[in-house]
Amino acid sequence: MGKIINGKEVALKVKEDIKNFISNRKEKDLKIPKIASILVGNDGGSIYYMASQEKVAVSLGAGFLKVTLPETSKNEDVISEIHKLNEDKDVQGIILQLPLPSNFDEKKIIKEISPSKDIDCLTFESQGKLYMGEPKFLPCTPNSVVTLIKSLNVDIVGKNVVVLGRSNIVGKPVAQLLLNENATVTICHSKTKNLREVCRVADILVVAIGRPKFIDETYVNEDAIVIDVGTSSFEGKITGDVDFDKVIDKCKLLTPVPGGVGALTTTLLIKNACEALEQNEY
Amino acid sequence: MGKIINGKEVALKVKEDIKNFISNRKEKDLKIPKIASILVGNDGGSIYYMASQEKVAVSLGAGFLKVTLPETSKNEDVISEIHKLNEDKDVQGIILQLPLPSNFDEKKIIKEISPSKDIDCLTFESQGKLYMGEPKFLPCTPNSVVTLIKSLNVDIVGKNVVVLGRSNIVGKPVAQLLLNENATVTICHSKTKNLREVCRVADILVVAIGRPKFIDETYVNEDAIVIDVGTSSFEGKITGDVDFDKVIDKCKLLTPVPGGVGALTTTLLIKNACEALEQNEY
Repeated sequence: MGKIINGKEVALKVKEDIKNFISNRKEKDLKIPKIASILVGNDGGSIYYMASQEKVAVSLGAGFLKVTLPETSKNEDVISEIHKLNEDKDVQGIILQLPLPSNFDEKKIIKEISPSKDIDCLTFESQGKLYMGEPKFLPCTPNSVVTLIKSLNVDIVGKNVVVLGRSNIVGKPVAQLLLNENATVTICHSKTKNLREVCRVADILVVAIGRPKFIDETYVNEDAIVIDVGTSSFEGKITGDVDFDKVIDKCKLLTPVPGGVGALTTTLLIKNACEALEQNEY
Repeated sequence: MGKIINGKEVALKVKEDIKNFISNRKEKDLKIPKIASILVGNDGGSIYYMASQEKVAVSLGAGFLKVTLPETSKNEDVISEIHKLNEDKDVQGIILQLPLPSNFDEKKIIKEISPSKDIDCLTFESQGKLYMGEPKFLPCTPNSVVTLIKSLNVDIVGKNVVVLGRSNIVGKPVAQLLLNENATVTICHSKTKNLREVCRVADILVVAIGRPKFIDETYVNEDAIVIDVGTSSFEGKITGDVDFDKVIDKCKLLTPVPGGVGALTTTLLIKNACEALEQNEY
């Protein structure tokens, strides 16, 4: 099974770096990174992610502040909490758990997050900086994709990368980050003609469409590196967009789901908080 | 020469729409669009563009306010002018002529432009909205490319579009806009391997690399629509990235330089000012 790209192993290395960064600061009596996470209402997924973020943050030595608001609160209440956290010099990163309950104006609220603390890359300003090639923070899932590819020590320059999916949170930013790495990038989607042929010539294929087991062995070539960003619930199991059993025997390297891209995202969020701390000190 | 895509003709149609929009408003005693253009120093190119923008704006019935500052002024002077224009209810669009003289902090100044008046799409917020698929205004040169393609009444959906060049002002936003039109988009650049082969299978090829006559007939197929965004000075003439004489006989349709993409950009800037006026009224 040497063909499997192990997200947990890559995450362990990043975690070591973060631990060292924080413990060095503690020894020197310097400020340590602290993340504030805002949860509005009781969305099950959001509660799960928040708990998992807290667990990773605390395990690495970072601070984690939970701010919870009832579903009955108003836009202004959430904005007021964001303003307090923007001003709080001990908080480096602000995470707003999405989606908000439907009675809230998500766009209006997101734009109040200070770009210097927007470690989840939610604001238009953060997105603009990303696409203009001057990101303050890298969005975590796209960064996880690129970090996994880089961990393989392959030369990305000039490689034929095909990104399947064009969402704002994965497809488009992944394409941007791989373009920054000097890959030739093709973005495909549901309207692409000859999708199989386009995917099959990819040196690196990134799949983020949210359709479980959509990609089988006919979509890849023998030398392909395949990164599966899908996480759908399928027959009671978290399942990727790639039909793992069929593709693993044909391609060169493949990320599993779970244990691939997703194994790295929360760690990269904490890393962003460390970078925020360094950026804001200067 | 039915193979030539005539930018001036397309511009004429857009100009008619703008003229009608403005004269209808005048008849009803409603506010008409007014653009403020800020020129700092004496850059020849900037003076030329400003004069040309004024000419088009006035010819269409729009207002045009020139704000000039000496090269000896300071960042704060430019910012103060921008703040005044942000507050001025008669001004719908603000253009900052770039590049600024080297003693100015361009980034610091640009971010002061109100996103609701940023008709040239310069701020990070405008760029973020563009890439998130919620643009307030479309940047003029990329919009010119898409407007020319749409004027041909070809079906863009699922088409294989190759964008050669990845600049912030052309390549990347063009790719984004054509992705919004449901094309399959490949972004190529100087590090792309087999560039000729990649370009040759394009249904639509957009070239924006600033290398005069770089693209010859070996880069295109017989059915290709070729959009040339290049404007270099070559042997004393404004010259595109496409070797016109060699490509026109092979491809299906081609934009000339001058008279193609560039013939439309200023008109689209005025159109943005009209849209700003409508957006800000509600």
